[in-house]
Amino acid sequence: MKVLYGGVEGGGTSSNVVLITEDGTIVAKAEGPNTNHWLVGVDRCLAAINQMVQEAKKKAQSDPKIPLKALGMSLSGGEQEEAICKLVQQLRKKYPNLSESYYVTTDAIGGIATATDTGGIVLISGTGSNCKLVNPDGSEIGCGGWGHLLGDEGSAYWTSHLAIKTVFDTIDNFKPSSYDTCPVEDAMYDYFQISNRMGLLTHLYRTFEKSKIAGFCRRLAEVAYTGDPFCQHLFTRAGQELARHIVAVLPNADKILFEGELGLSIVCVGSVWNSWDLLKDGFLEVLEEAKGMPVGKDLGKFTLMKLKHSSAVGAASLGARHIGYDLPMKYADNVVVFFSHVFRL
Amino acid sequence: MKVLYGGVEGGGTSSNVVLITEDGTIVAKAEGPNTNHWLVGVDRCLAAINQMVQEAKKKAQSDPKIPLKALGMSLSGGEQEEAICKLVQQLRKKYPNLSESYYVTTDAIGGIATATDTGGIVLISGTGSNCKLVNPDGSEIGCGGWGHLLGDEGSAYWTSHLAIKTVFDTIDNFKPSSYDTCPVEDAMYDYFQISNRMGLLTHLYRTFEKSKIAGFCRRLAEVAYTGDPFCQHLFTRAGQELARHIVAVLPNADKILFEGELGLSIVCVGSVWNSWDLLKDGFLEVLEEAKGMPVGKDLGKFTLMKLKHSSAVGAASLGARHIGYDLPMKYADNVVVFFSHVFRL
Repeated sequence: MKVLYGGVEGGGTSSNVVLITEDGTIVAKAEGPNTNHWLVGVDRCLAAINQMVQEAKKKAQSDPKIPLKALGMSLSGGEQEEAICKLVQQLRKKYPNLSESYYVTTDAIGGIATATDTGGIVLISGTGSNCKLVNPDGSEIGCGGWGHLLGDEGSAYWTSHLAIKTVFDTIDNFKPSSYDTCPVEDAMYDYFQISNRMGLLTHLYRTFEKSKIAGFCRRLAEVAYTGDPFCQHLFTRAGQELARHIVAVLPNADKILFEGELGLSIVCVGSVWNSWDLLKDGFLEVLEEAKGMPVGKDLGKFTLMKLKHSSAVGAASLGARHIGYDLPMKYADNVVVFFSHVFRL
Repeated sequence: MKVLYGGVEGGGTSSNVVLITEDGTIVAKAEGPNTNHWLVGVDRCLAAINQMVQEAKKKAQSDPKIPLKALGMSLSGGEQEEAICKLVQQLRKKYPNLSESYYVTTDAIGGIATATDTGGIVLISGTGSNCKLVNPDGSEIGCGGWGHLLGDEGSAYWTSHLAIKTVFDTIDNFKPSSYDTCPVEDAMYDYFQISNRMGLLTHLYRTFEKSKIAGFCRRLAEVAYTGDPFCQHLFTRAGQELARHIVAVLPNADKILFEGELGLSIVCVGSVWNSWDLLKDGFLEVLEEAKGMPVGKDLGKFTLMKLKHSSAVGAASLGARHIGYDLPMKYADNVVVFFSHVFRL
């Protein structure tokens, strides 16, 4: 019987699982829904994880009754220790055949573990946002990742929310935008299938789904690509906020992270990065500004890369390492560079 | 049998009912919980209203089986027509002995109807915030009142949230405050009974209660009164935001509203106004600024007043007027002036 290591990437809109054999080969994948336990509750989170793993076991032609050797989980919402302990306890109790051992970390740490084992920065912008710096010695420092009520700056939810809020404030004459917000207002009515802004209250309060609000960001990107200045401004703002996460963790970065050929490596995870050309101006503006300040003195170059494989791969590797096994990983094959920038001195 | 008119003031933390006889005498009062249907759901909202009215009927020694002549409801969250129609339909169906007729309006309109029948501005800052201008011809214009996900600027929730968010952003080095945020951080741990900021996630996401978050504002006021500069800054910010609601509706105000002895009358509803001395600097700053702009040209003087009776009184009067009866109201007895300001030319 094959020894299998599992990895979960748990997001606020969708999730996925990979199963990997001892030699590092991915033998099965499966997909599933939102598994952020803060958003869907613990029961739905665990059921979805079990469902995905069991489906993947079948695809790998492995007996679903035989536990995985280890299951590493890289979860959006995987920050708070106490909640995570309970999560694992319940997983063991409810689904005893799922895995022999468990390891839970954040979506950010799973992302970086997919890209490298020598440290760097991961910057997530999907449904929510989060940033983690990992130094070569394994020390971590984070910024953000506190969910839609306390941040999520630069995420799809945040950008959608900024759009909606600006429309409301403009109609109210409260903080009127200098942009024409009508195209976004129309897109909002159409996306949420409502006839006026009152209709949005139901989506925000009665039937709140973070991923539904976040999904509006895709529509905003489409409107931005038609040349709408307000929409372009929203993504510039998102780019600024994302870059501020980087600036926030810079003081804790080991100097060695700035020194490689690529300069500072930033692993970009999440679907908002698909609109990089819209984010770019705001992102560069904030980093150029930081370069001129003491915090940016070591910043000569940075490189943005995306993952070619799911963060579930890194999660699997962390889960294996947790029980003392190093899964063979070809990190260079897991990433693709999409932007590089050299600062002028 | 006495003919009784009822009024409900429905807030995001607590609610209350008054019963009034045809000659305008308040004969009974009752109190109850949060009845914001967006926050507690329709069923709990209606049950609480019924409970309070029936309790008040008993206090008035009226048969609970005999419906009120009219019930006017001034509800936080009473904005959206469709939701309100459903609310009244279900009230009729579930509690047929409650009242013969119903009238629903917002907390803001109920507040102003308690203070005057000649128009003015009501500015609510309680759990949430809201602002409505009513002209002498009855025309209305609003600003805000969209709930904690879309605004509530200057409310207790908003001020608590700003405090919490600033603490998080400072620890994250994301947007570090220039103030010492440690006293507020300590107050936060104490108020929410948590040992670190991770513990707050449970209060924000797992067991979210808007009134619990808003309740932290009272603690912030206490810390501000000890002289803590960061806390004082938070209330200055709240004062600014509240004043911006006024500036937003000014362009729609009938000139006659500026011309009385009191200047522009602003009816201030909600417990945050108990901290007026903390709000004052920010509030005046924004209105002084507006005075220097075209929007403020008619602004010579303004007067802030509080209600001595609950907005339920105004709600009862609106409910009666809805069926063609004018409840006798002594408006001057319903308010107390607490601040006046004359602008220099």
